[in-house]
Amino acid sequence: MHILVTGAAGMIGSKLTEGLGRDGELKGQRIDKLTLVDVVAPQRPAKVAEKIEAVAADLAASGAAAKAIADRPDVIFHLAGVVSGEAELDFNKGYRVNLDGTRALLEAIRATGDGYRPRLVYTSSIAVFGAPFPDLIPDDFHLTPLTSYGTQKAIGEALLADYTRRGFCDGVGIRLPSVVVRPGKPNKAASGFFSGIIREPLAGLEAVLPVSETVVHTHASPRAAVGFLIHAAGLARDALGPRINLSMPGVSCTVGDQIASLRRIAGDRVAARIRRAEDPLVARIVEGWPQRIEARRARELGFKAENSFDEIVRIHIDEDRSGTFIK
Amino acid sequence: MHILVTGAAGMIGSKLTEGLGRDGELKGQRIDKLTLVDVVAPQRPAKVAEKIEAVAADLAASGAAAKAIADRPDVIFHLAGVVSGEAELDFNKGYRVNLDGTRALLEAIRATGDGYRPRLVYTSSIAVFGAPFPDLIPDDFHLTPLTSYGTQKAIGEALLADYTRRGFCDGVGIRLPSVVVRPGKPNKAASGFFSGIIREPLAGLEAVLPVSETVVHTHASPRAAVGFLIHAAGLARDALGPRINLSMPGVSCTVGDQIASLRRIAGDRVAARIRRAEDPLVARIVEGWPQRIEARRARELGFKAENSFDEIVRIHIDEDRSGTFIK
Repeated sequence: MHILVTGAAGMIGSKLTEGLGRDGELKGQRIDKLTLVDVVAPQRPAKVAEKIEAVAADLAASGAAAKAIADRPDVIFHLAGVVSGEAELDFNKGYRVNLDGTRALLEAIRATGDGYRPRLVYTSSIAVFGAPFPDLIPDDFHLTPLTSYGTQKAIGEALLADYTRRGFCDGVGIRLPSVVVRPGKPNKAASGFFSGIIREPLAGLEAVLPVSETVVHTHASPRAAVGFLIHAAGLARDALGPRINLSMPGVSCTVGDQIASLRRIAGDRVAARIRRAEDPLVARIVEGWPQRIEARRARELGFKAENSFDEIVRIHIDEDRSGTFIK
Repeated sequence: MHILVTGAAGMIGSKLTEGLGRDGELKGQRIDKLTLVDVVAPQRPAKVAEKIEAVAADLAASGAAAKAIADRPDVIFHLAGVVSGEAELDFNKGYRVNLDGTRALLEAIRATGDGYRPRLVYTSSIAVFGAPFPDLIPDDFHLTPLTSYGTQKAIGEALLADYTRRGFCDGVGIRLPSVVVRPGKPNKAASGFFSGIIREPLAGLEAVLPVSETVVHTHASPRAAVGFLIHAAGLARDALGPRINLSMPGVSCTVGDQIASLRRIAGDRVAARIRRAEDPLVARIVEGWPQRIEARRARELGFKAENSFDEIVRIHIDEDRSGTFIK
C-alpha cells in the first residue's frame, strides 16, 4: 500500500502522517511507502519502518502533480490548501492553490490512465455553506459559500464528483467542521478564537473572545479529523453512492458551552483567563458561518466525532500538552 | 449602452442579438454598440442602426477575453459554451470552453479594475441538478450534477457568485430549462427529441421518440429564454440579494402532454409522424434529469415563461416557420 499525503506539513497533515506511521497499515494493508508533499518539506514521522519520501512542491506548478503521483499511490489524502483568511486576503493565491492545485492533481490522475484509479480523499469544509441557514443544516443543503475559500472548496467537490463519475478516480470529499483545539500559536483566522479560548488559558495565557457567548458552531478535534480521513479512505464505493461529498459530524455547541467545559476540566482560574472584547468585524463574519450540521449520512456511514466539548478539551490536553496545563 | 454577447452565433445568442437589434435599447437606454463574439464569426442582425462588431474568438485562448471586454461593455451576456452531449464526449473541450472560458472572462473583468463592474448575465442550466429529486425542485435544492456539462455550469455559478461578492462584477446566473422548440436540424443531444417530436412532424418529417410518454420535463421557448436574459440584465441588485443564481420558470409537462399540444394545434396527421422507438440509453440519461422546477424566486422577480406547451408550439410555428406547417 502506497499513500500520498498533500499538505502533509499542515496541522492535520502532520497528525495524519504520525497516525499512519504509528498504525503501519491502512484498510488492513501494510503501508509500504508514504509520500509526503507540501510547499515546505514535511517532517518525517517518528517510529516508521516503511519507505518515506518527503517532497517540497506546489501542486499548481507545471508538472508537480504528475511527479507527486508518478509512483501511483493507492490512496491520496489531498489536504493541501490555503486557509480561509488567507484565501480572502489573497484572491490569486487562494484560487491558485485551492482550485488550480486540486484540478492539477485530478488532471494528473486522469492523464495516468491505464486503469489507475486511486482512492482520493479530499478535505472540504463546512465553509461551502453560507447563511441564511435552517436550525440544522441537512446533508442536501445547497452550497452558497460566502467566502472565496468556501467557493474554492465547493468547486473542488464538484470536480471530484465529476472525475469520480467519469471513472478517473475514486473520490470521497469530507466537509470538516471547525477543527478545535488547534495546537500552536494563535493565527489570524477569524475562527482562531474557537481554539484560542481553550488553548491559551490552559497555557497560562490570556485569550480574547471577540464574539458573544451565544454563538453556536460545530467542532471536532484534530484526532476526530484524522479519524474521518482514515475512515473515508476505507469506505466502500457502493456504500457511498453517487453523492460522494459528505458533511462530517461534530459537537454543536455555544461558545458559552465551550467555556463551561474548560471550567469543568481546568477550573475557574483557567477559565478566568478569557477576556471578553467584542469585535464587530469578527462577529459579522462568524454570523455567516454554519452553526449546527446534521451529518446524518456521515454518521450512518460510520464517521465518528466526539460526543461532548469536554472530550475535545481533554484530547487537546492529552495530545498537545502531555496531559498537563497551567493551573 | 455597450453590450457584449458571447456565444452570439448560437441559437439563443442569435435570437437575443436579433431582439436587441430590433429593440434598439436595453434597460431603457439606447444601445450604442453591440459586440458579438463566438468561435465562428457571428451574423450581424438585420435592422440595426448602432455600431456592431462581430468577432471570432475563443475566450479560453490567451488574451481573447481581455480583448473582448477592452471597450468596457456595460452589460455582458455570456452564452458561449459547449453543449451537454459534446461536453460529455469531449472532456477536455467541455472544461476548456465551459470552465476555462468563463473563468477567463471573469478574470479579464477583474483585471480591468478601475471601478469597472459590468452586469454579467450568465446562462447556466437546470443540468446543475441531478437525481434523485423531490416532486418539485425548490430554489435551494443542492447541486449534484450528473454530467460534466452540469458540473461546469455549477462551477461557473460558484465563480460568478464569488466574483460578484468580491465586487469584481455584477453577476446574475440564470438556469435555463430545456429550450424547446429548437429550430434547425436534429442534433445529437440526448434531449434533442423534446424539440424533434414537434419540429419534424410540423416540417412533414418523421420524428423518433426514444422515451416513454410519461417522461416529465420543464420547457421554455427560445423567445422566453431571450426574455429571461433581457430581464436578468435589468434586475436591480438589491432585489436579487446574495444568492444570484436563479432557476428559471418553464412549462412542466409530460411528453404525452407535448404530443397532445401538437395534435390540438396541427391535427392528427401531423402528430402521427411521431414514431415510438424506445432507446434504453437515452431513457436512462433522461431519468437523471430534473423534472419539475419550482422557480419561485425567479417568478417573484418577474421572470416569465409560457403558461402551456400549446404556447410553445405556436411560438415555434410563428417564429421559425413563418406561421405555417406541413399538414
